[in-house]
Amino acid sequence: MIDLRSDTVTKPTEEMRKAAYQAKVGDDVYNEDPTVRRLEELAAQMLGKEDALFVTSGTQGNQIAVLTHCVPGNEILLEEDSHIFYYEGGAVSAFAGVQTRTIKGHRGAMDPTLVEVAIRGEDIHVPETGLICLENTHNRAGGAIVPIDNMESIYNVASKYNVPVHLDGARLFNAAVALNKPLTDFTKFTTTVQVCLSKGLGAPVGSIIAGDEQFIKKARKWRKRLGGGLRQVGLIAAPAMVALTQMVERLSVDHDNAKRLAAGIGSIKGLEVINEVDTNIVLIDVAKKGLTAEEYIRLLKEQGILAVSFGPTIIRMTTHYDVSTEQIDQALAILQK
Amino acid sequence: MIDLRSDTVTKPTEEMRKAAYQAKVGDDVYNEDPTVRRLEELAAQMLGKEDALFVTSGTQGNQIAVLTHCVPGNEILLEEDSHIFYYEGGAVSAFAGVQTRTIKGHRGAMDPTLVEVAIRGEDIHVPETGLICLENTHNRAGGAIVPIDNMESIYNVASKYNVPVHLDGARLFNAAVALNKPLTDFTKFTTTVQVCLSKGLGAPVGSIIAGDEQFIKKARKWRKRLGGGLRQVGLIAAPAMVALTQMVERLSVDHDNAKRLAAGIGSIKGLEVINEVDTNIVLIDVAKKGLTAEEYIRLLKEQGILAVSFGPTIIRMTTHYDVSTEQIDQALAILQK
Amino acid sequence: MIDLRSDTVTKPTEEMRKAAYQAKVGDDVYNEDPTVRRLEELAAQMLGKEDALFVTSGTQGNQIAVLTHCVPGNEILLEEDSHIFYYEGGAVSAFAGVQTRTIKGHRGAMDPTLVEVAIRGEDIHVPETGLICLENTHNRAGGAIVPIDNMESIYNVASKYNVPVHLDGARLFNAAVALNKPLTDFTKFTTTVQVCLSKGLGAPVGSIIAGDEQFIKKARKWRKRLGGGLRQVGLIAAPAMVALTQMVERLSVDHDNAKRLAAGIGSIKGLEVINEVDTNIVLIDVAKKGLTAEEYIRLLKEQGILAVSFGPTIIRMTTHYDVSTEQIDQALAILQK
Amino acid sequence: MIDLRSDTVTKPTEEMRKAAYQAKVGDDVYNEDPTVRRLEELAAQMLGKEDALFVTSGTQGNQIAVLTHCVPGNEILLEEDSHIFYYEGGAVSAFAGVQTRTIKGHRGAMDPTLVEVAIRGEDIHVPETGLICLENTHNRAGGAIVPIDNMESIYNVASKYNVPVHLDGARLFNAAVALNKPLTDFTKFTTTVQVCLSKGLGAPVGSIIAGDEQFIKKARKWRKRLGGGLRQVGLIAAPAMVALTQMVERLSVDHDNAKRLAAGIGSIKGLEVINEVDTNIVLIDVAKKGLTAEEYIRLLKEQGILAVSFGPTIIRMTTHYDVSTEQIDQALAILQK
Repeated sequence: MIDLRSDTVTKPTEEMRKAAYQAKVGDDVYNEDPTVRRLEELAAQMLGKEDALFVTSGTQGNQIAVLTHCVPGNEILLEEDSHIFYYEGGAVSAFAGVQTRTIKGHRGAMDPTLVEVAIRGEDIHVPETGLICLENTHNRAGGAIVPIDNMESIYNVASKYNVPVHLDGARLFNAAVALNKPLTDFTKFTTTVQVCLSKGLGAPVGSIIAGDEQFIKKARKWRKRLGGGLRQVGLIAAPAMVALTQMVERLSVDHDNAKRLAAGIGSIKGLEVINEVDTNIVLIDVAKKGLTAEEYIRLLKEQGILAVSFGPTIIRMTTHYDVSTEQIDQALAILQK
Repeated sequence: MIDLRSDTVTKPTEEMRKAAYQAKVGDDVYNEDPTVRRLEELAAQMLGKEDALFVTSGTQGNQIAVLTHCVPGNEILLEEDSHIFYYEGGAVSAFAGVQTRTIKGHRGAMDPTLVEVAIRGEDIHVPETGLICLENTHNRAGGAIVPIDNMESIYNVASKYNVPVHLDGARLFNAAVALNKPLTDFTKFTTTVQVCLSKGLGAPVGSIIAGDEQFIKKARKWRKRLGGGLRQVGLIAAPAMVALTQMVERLSVDHDNAKRLAAGIGSIKGLEVINEVDTNIVLIDVAKKGLTAEEYIRLLKEQGILAVSFGPTIIRMTTHYDVSTEQIDQALAILQK
Repeated sequence: MIDLRSDTVTKPTEEMRKAAYQAKVGDDVYNEDPTVRRLEELAAQMLGKEDALFVTSGTQGNQIAVLTHCVPGNEILLEEDSHIFYYEGGAVSAFAGVQTRTIKGHRGAMDPTLVEVAIRGEDIHVPETGLICLENTHNRAGGAIVPIDNMESIYNVASKYNVPVHLDGARLFNAAVALNKPLTDFTKFTTTVQVCLSKGLGAPVGSIIAGDEQFIKKARKWRKRLGGGLRQVGLIAAPAMVALTQMVERLSVDHDNAKRLAAGIGSIKGLEVINEVDTNIVLIDVAKKGLTAEEYIRLLKEQGILAVSFGPTIIRMTTHYDVSTEQIDQALAILQK
Repeated sequence: MIDLRSDTVTKPTEEMRKAAYQAKVGDDVYNEDPTVRRLEELAAQMLGKEDALFVTSGTQGNQIAVLTHCVPGNEILLEEDSHIFYYEGGAVSAFAGVQTRTIKGHRGAMDPTLVEVAIRGEDIHVPETGLICLENTHNRAGGAIVPIDNMESIYNVASKYNVPVHLDGARLFNAAVALNKPLTDFTKFTTTVQVCLSKGLGAPVGSIIAGDEQFIKKARKWRKRLGGGLRQVGLIAAPAMVALTQMVERLSVDHDNAKRLAAGIGSIKGLEVINEVDTNIVLIDVAKKGLTAEEYIRLLKEQGILAVSFGPTIIRMTTHYDVSTEQIDQALAILQK
């Protein structure tokens, strides 16, 4: 099977398994796991924030950020196809009690003017804006990189109204590698950030949230309430450390593979690549094949290719560590048929 | 002062005051207030529903509807300028824990196709759609009447997916009078409905929610939790009864006055009426006066006219029982200057 | 019928009805109702607080207090038979997201030492105490007056840990009249307070919450979310004003009647008064009659007396403005049989 | 250091590390991790339930149970010193919106009669009981075993009122081993159960919740919202499998050690064991040493013993896999001094 469903499917590398095997561990609820502390310190440094916290998933990191920044009756602003709004089960409203106000973006980027208009302050009728959420790269926009100057403009607007900015950077590493910029070029325009170690970087489990000390202190308590306070977490923090230190640069291979895949598909009749491929995601409209996304995905599966549905006639293919360039070519050969 | 801020500012009529004075009352928490029961029964009948419940405001009625229909982790679909989303302090998320998913409407009406696309079912990643909310007339769309066939189409879509439909009918009486149709022509395409007696109808306080018996039973408990379980409520239900029985037909006067106001403003340089006036609301862009809405409102106030801001350069004027046709003409004369 | 179910059943007096009839009103959402403002100012003064807010019920006032003082994940301390815990539908947890920690009191009064032990601070495992709630007089303790020095001790403990104190003073007027003390002797040991005008004072509808300006400002917004932002509220604020200014002193009659009732019942075989009657509530154990509370209540009803169940074999009788001393004697005569 | 703080501090065994190293993994969000599925199936079988779900902590398992069984406005009944009430940050109210009603137990066991009295049904004033939570063994009662017939009685009461029963069985293995009974002897009197693999069993991370298929299906979605939907979770499920299959019987060693520790302490002047030692927890009152718990713990730490505070003058010592019988004797020697 050539598994192009998601970069979450990557299996831990031999080195990650070894790291798990040898990990120094302790009880992290007592702050005594040395491996997770090293990971958090390194992550904080890479992200340019005072402190960081290991969490079990990107969803958990995002939820903690909203719980920590907001109170019920707040409104959060976020792109209308963002992960927090689209794929987290409505948890921000269920748990943090915040109302979601979405803004339609262009390739994942919200117009700062629209953001400013949408910010709401003290008025007895309206929820106050408690947080602005960005996503970079933007999954449903096909892995699009939200431009740094867009982030800067939104951050400036937010700062003007004293509203914090949280970045869902589940795939921020992809953006950084694709633009060849340090993570801090992005994160300096955010109050807090979540990055995922178990997507392109290949860690079996884990994400990081980062922010100032006060934020992380409060976040730690919300993590406990969510059931994310773990014990000998070093066993998963160790492979996550391998991901963070050794797997970042190789994301460029995934990007090349995605471009190769998109180029190949572009010349296949009936298939249309509908996104500009910035990173590792390719969105394909199969409408002209006369099939729904679900039907086409079933056909592909019979031929040894896995993909996911992204709309009635849209499918998503994602490149990652466990798909080689050869497999991309094999996939193209199959698609050709 | 010619008060065009809102139809909520109407003062109770002499007859309403008398009704309050003479009201038969009892303790409504024990279901013993005869006046509120009569009001609820009449309202249920007029709205074509099994039962009805008196609540202290439109906001309370809407909140109870969402609390009763939904559970946390649900998503509700509603127009992006709807009252529930725009003006209720984010309470649906704070109290009912539901995520708001907005759809941009045309004159307050959502495209049923977009509604259908937005409905979400059982998938581990997404919130399930728990409710679709309509608003008729639509306040921020300038008192626009949402067409009955639009309501029907959305209701059919909703029924297909077993999703209930709630109508925020704070100004449903205006729609019914303007189209010369019974309320039931609208409410038959809704599961539940809220109507406001303290807007155009002039009651000092009160709204009604209506639905089937099971809904009202659960609603009664949520009303108690919200602090809306009152004692000798007949004192306000009695004037509300006057509103419901004697003040509906006269809404046509407000509509005529609004059209007269809009026509007059249309011929004033620098002012632009931006809505088609279906009922009692006129939206005016003052941008060409070179002023912000707030600045223009301040000027108007000095001249004896009250209006409210509806955007950076937009003001809203609303006609109602306490503004006569003569006052409309006076207002036009002042605006002319 | 001699209605001893609750002091909430009192019907508005002629003077209250007249006050409603003549009330000067305005739109209170715009802060323009002069009658409610006068009521709020007077109440604030009587309660010794900076500001006050009219709400539609005691439950609403209590809920707003908790919503304003706390954030989700807080714990509140309250007596295990208190109204907020016992009779408000779990709304403090449903809306404010706070955990309830109850302390068993003696005649409604919690031991300050137990309160201090129960306060919880910053620890990753535990909810922080966000509020301590008192109730005076205490309904389920049979209208018992919580001693002022108990309130003082708890307030001192609370202050030591920076925890606010809210008083559910639905029947605080009864306590003040019974002890012949001003309200401020009680409220000086609370951060905020709720008093009910529609119980012994006889107003048809309404309660007051009072606190400092910042509290009332935030409270106003939570009231709006709960649907308690009313329009021409003067119509009910006017009779409430009559209640507040003219009906307080007469509560002593209710207290005398309750004592008379208790004394009479004390000499009836098979009935046992189980509370010391401080104010207007009498709790009676009917076990020795060989009947359940529900059965005995049904019998009483057939004989023209209404009471409510307060436990498997306990019934509650409450004296109020609409029960005369003669009726108390009639009731005793009936009970005798 | 002789670490007697908690059985959570156990480090993974060599075999667990090897299991992690070799684990077959897949993406569990896609239900493709074979190791976690094997673990869940075995756990379901051992617990006598239709299905089971791996979660990252006992807190997460308990929270999911409450979220799945209840709706906001429900009340849950639980022992006043139970973990869910005492140590989960008030999360049941913050997330599930339920009110906590506590019952004082005897050695962790609630009186079934008190439970029955506390159950509340349909009444407009009160929250309906949505869940009864048990804890066995009971941590704050000193690892006391709640008798199976107590569980049966409560389960019968609950069933009579159609209220589900959830067992926080974080240390259920200890109870089962101590009584030499299968887990199912306990779990047959519960609707759902949570068991912890990272306490006495020594797994680095993980708990299990079990119940019927419908429960687990809904639970899976709540787990996702909480951020507990992991990817290659086999890496931690594999050592958890070792814990579940090979570490249960040896808990009897911990129990023997705890008894040995308690016996030794019993003969030390100034120290008093205040619990009957059923399993692996010893509670010690240090009051007669003239020290607070915190002070005594500090002294012990200087001497190489770690314990935790359990009250002003109470400390808890817990035996586990990483404390040998020799270390118990060393600890006693130190305490003697």
